[in-house]
Amino acid sequence: MAVSHADILALAQRLGEALRERALRVATVESCTGGWIAKAITDVAGSSAWFEAGWVTYSNPAKAELVGVSLATLERYGAVSEQTVAEMATGGLARWPRAALAVAVSGIAGPDGGSADKPVGLVWFAWADGRAGAAARLDCEWRRFDGDREAVRAATVAHALRGVLERL
Amino acid sequence: MAVSHADILALAQRLGEALRERALRVATVESCTGGWIAKAITDVAGSSAWFEAGWVTYSNPAKAELVGVSLATLERYGAVSEQTVAEMATGGLARWPRAALAVAVSGIAGPDGGSADKPVGLVWFAWADGRAGAAARLDCEWRRFDGDREAVRAATVAHALRGVLERL
Repeated sequence: MAVSHADILALAQRLGEALRERALRVATVESCTGGWIAKAITDVAGSSAWFEAGWVTYSNPAKAELVGVSLATLERYGAVSEQTVAEMATGGLARWPRAALAVAVSGIAGPDGGSADKPVGLVWFAWADGRAGAAARLDCEWRRFDGDREAVRAATVAHALRGVLERL
Repeated sequence: MAVSHADILALAQRLGEALRERALRVATVESCTGGWIAKAITDVAGSSAWFEAGWVTYSNPAKAELVGVSLATLERYGAVSEQTVAEMATGGLARWPRAALAVAVSGIAGPDGGSADKPVGLVWFAWADGRAGAAARLDCEWRRFDGDREAVRAATVAHALRGVLERL
């Protein structure tokens, strides 16, 4: 089922409440969503209490220069890969240690850019957790979403926000 | 009149065409819009040709650490000021010289955070132009938008995009 803007707003509100209750912050590193995750988080009034910093790293050079993804990783595995999102999330958290968690996404929103190996709708996610004692410091997973560019991006935003919520 | 999401998409499409024709790129540094300007730019398929990098600098520390706004500027003039957006735009462009222009916004989206001096709806804009021979290297201006948080943010996104278009 397609993710609506109302779904995203409701998720961002739930996430904001959960972060505020725990006095935690989240940081974002976005490729295919192009800032939409941060936009969704800051749709919620008062979000400055749980969000301070995000990067939109839309190209490979931006992933390398803004959050330190290694060029070797980008060359070997490509932008849409577990290795790249992992480095995006850990790079974001390293640059913004005031956040407890960083979420990173990189995928193929379409309509172009897909291949047999990496089809349109494929998105890699990473959540890095900087809290001492966090059970999993870094989780990565992929999803393949149906629909057009807007639908893939909306589904990616929702999944990224849900993933932060589940890890609080 | 309120700015609709369709208005923003139409503007982002016009901007994308204009940037592509000229083979120019734009970078974004956002406070009150929280990533929405970058999201709007990347709503357009093919936007990787004209957009690579953006920062969401929602807090003062993020403005300082991500794009180099000086703490003295933030302390003396506040986050919503001509001086701060100017340093956001020039700092973004310095960090991403592959872009011809950088646009920065900082404002009070509400519902909280307003004062007599700086009411809800006040937004400062800066456009920095890195092209050799550009007539104006840096333009700053402010607007006061009516409406709720969503309306103020939407109007800010539209004005920022229009401002880039007008400077190409």
